[in-house]
Amino acid sequence: MSPKATIAIHGGAGTLSRNNISPAQEAAYHEALAAILRAGEQVLANGGTALDAVSLAVDLLEDCPLFNAGHGAVFTSAETHELDAAVMDGATLKAGAIACVSHIKRPLRAARAVMECSEHVLLVGAGAEAFAQGLGMEMVSPDYFSTEARREQLYRAKASSVTVLDHDGAANNAAPLDESRKFGTVGAVALDVHGNLAAATSTGGMTNKRPGRVGDSPLIGAGTYADNRTAAVSCTGTGEMFIRAATAYELCARMAYGGQSLEAAAEAAVMQSLSAIEGRGGLIAVDAQGNVSLPFNTEGMYRGQMRIGDAAPQTAIFR
Amino acid sequence: MSPKATIAIHGGAGTLSRNNISPAQEAAYHEALAAILRAGEQVLANGGTALDAVSLAVDLLEDCPLFNAGHGAVFTSAETHELDAAVMDGATLKAGAIACVSHIKRPLRAARAVMECSEHVLLVGAGAEAFAQGLGMEMVSPDYFSTEARREQLYRAKASSVTVLDHDGAANNAAPLDESRKFGTVGAVALDVHGNLAAATSTGGMTNKRPGRVGDSPLIGAGTYADNRTAAVSCTGTGEMFIRAATAYELCARMAYGGQSLEAAAEAAVMQSLSAIEGRGGLIAVDAQGNVSLPFNTEGMYRGQMRIGDAAPQTAIFR
Repeated sequence: MSPKATIAIHGGAGTLSRNNISPAQEAAYHEALAAILRAGEQVLANGGTALDAVSLAVDLLEDCPLFNAGHGAVFTSAETHELDAAVMDGATLKAGAIACVSHIKRPLRAARAVMECSEHVLLVGAGAEAFAQGLGMEMVSPDYFSTEARREQLYRAKASSVTVLDHDGAANNAAPLDESRKFGTVGAVALDVHGNLAAATSTGGMTNKRPGRVGDSPLIGAGTYADNRTAAVSCTGTGEMFIRAATAYELCARMAYGGQSLEAAAEAAVMQSLSAIEGRGGLIAVDAQGNVSLPFNTEGMYRGQMRIGDAAPQTAIFR
Repeated sequence: MSPKATIAIHGGAGTLSRNNISPAQEAAYHEALAAILRAGEQVLANGGTALDAVSLAVDLLEDCPLFNAGHGAVFTSAETHELDAAVMDGATLKAGAIACVSHIKRPLRAARAVMECSEHVLLVGAGAEAFAQGLGMEMVSPDYFSTEARREQLYRAKASSVTVLDHDGAANNAAPLDESRKFGTVGAVALDVHGNLAAATSTGGMTNKRPGRVGDSPLIGAGTYADNRTAAVSCTGTGEMFIRAATAYELCARMAYGGQSLEAAAEAAVMQSLSAIEGRGGLIAVDAQGNVSLPFNTEGMYRGQMRIGDAAPQTAIFR
C-alpha cells in the first residue's frame, strides 16, 4: 500500500463575513469538513478507489446544509434550484456530468451514472432527469433542496439593486465566509493506494442566477479534471472565468507540457491565469505522488485534507 | 494591414460514403464551402474582425442544409432538434455558448449574445431561449430546422439495432461523407488584420442522440477555444472524447507550455491525445502568425481555408 493516499475537499471560497462569528459557529464548519474528510480517508485506508472516496465526500457535502450543493443549494432568480455536478476518473479519463437539474436528490451520483451507464459525458435538464429516473435513482420535489437560510439569501439579493456579489452581507446567518459573496461549490479530489486519481464537484450555482446558467463545476476541464499523469482538480469561484481560463485543465497542462510541479502549476493556474481575467476563487488539487495544493485568491476557502493514517484531518477557512 | 489574415472552416468529419458520388454531387460541397470562405475573406479583407468573420461563416454554414447545424440539423431520438453553439474572442478570452435549444433560429448569434450581452458563458435549454427571446432574437418553430433527408436518417438509425455510428450508410442521400457515420458540426476560425483570433462552432449534435446530451461544440476548451497568444480552434468528432481530452484547450496548452508550433500542437492534439482515448474527428486551427492546421483522423473532413487576397479558396473533403 502506498502511504501517500490522500483526500482533499472544499466547500466554496469567498470573502470574510462582516458578522462577528462566534468560535462555536466557526467550529461547526471545521467539524463538518473534518467528519467528511474522515469518511473519505476511511474509504482510502480500506483500499477503496479514489473515485469512491470523492463520490462519498461529495455525497456528504451535498447533504450538509452548510454548503451550497444538494440540500442547502442556493435559489435561482426564479426561486427554483438548478444543480450541476461532475466526476472524472484519472485512470481512464472517463467523466460524467449533469447540469440544470431540479429533481435528482444526489446530483453527484447522477453524474457518476452518466459516466458509468451511458456513452455520454454531459446531460442537462429534463433529459438528465429522465436518464437518472430511468436508472431508478431517487427523485425529489425541488423543495427538498430548499432551506430557509438560502431563501432569505435570495430575497436579500433581489432586494439589492446590484448583483449578488456586491450585496451587503450584514444580514447573514453567521457563517465565516460572507454567504452573499461566496462562490458556493463543493468538491473533492483523491489519490488512492492503487495510484489512481479522481475529482468530483457539485453545486447549486450562484444565488439569483438566471435560469439555464451553467457554471464551471459540471464542465470537464473548467471546474473538474483528473488525469493520473498530472493531477485531480476541483474548482470553486466565479464560474465564468474558470470556464474561459479552462482552469482545471490549465493546471494539468502546466504540469504535462511545462514540467511544473503540482504546487507551481496550481498556484499559477489561480494566481496568474485566472487572476489575469479577474477570476476569483480557488481550487483543490492532488497529484499521483500525493502532493496537495489548495490555492485561492479570495480571503477564505472552506477546505481540508487528510492522508491515510493521519491522526486527524487538517481543516481551514481563512488564509 | 497584415497580409496573413486568414479564415478556415469545417463542416464535419467522418468516413467515406459507400455511395458512388457523382462529380456534380461532390462539387456541391466544394461550392458551398468556397462561397462561405469567400464571404468570410471579404469581412477580413475589409478590415473586419475575426469575430465577425467567424460569426458570418457559421451563420452561412447553419443556413446551408448540407451541414448539420441550424437548418438541416439532425434529429434526437425523440424526433426533436437540440442545437448547440459557442464563440470565443481570442483578444479578450470572452466566450459565449448555448446548448439544448430548439427555437432559436441562429444558434451562433445567440451564443455571441451570451458573450456580449450577459455576464455568463453558457446558457442551456429554456433559460437560453428566454434570454435570446428577451433580446428580440428571431425564434422559430423547431420544424424550421427539419429537412426530409435528416428525418430519413433518424428513421434508418432507429431501425438499426446498433448505434448510429455503426449504421449501414447504403441509403444515404449522396453525400461524399457517410451521413450516418459523420460527426456533424460546423465551425470557423480566423485571424484578422488587427492580429486578433476568434473561433466559432455550431451543431445539431448526433442523430438519434438522447435528449439533453451536450457534446463538445458549446463547451469552451473542449470543442471551441481562442487565445491570441496561441490559437483559435474549432473541433468536430466524437464529442465525448473531445470533452475528456479537452482538445481545443489541449492544442493551445501544447503551444503555450510545450513550445510546440501550431502544426505540431494540432497534429498531436488529434493524433496523440484524442486518438489515445479512441476519439475520432478533426479540428481547424489558426495562430496569430496566420499558420493554419486542419488535422483529422477520419477518412475525410469537409474543410477549407482562404487568406485575404487569395484568388480562390482552397477546399477539400478527403485526405
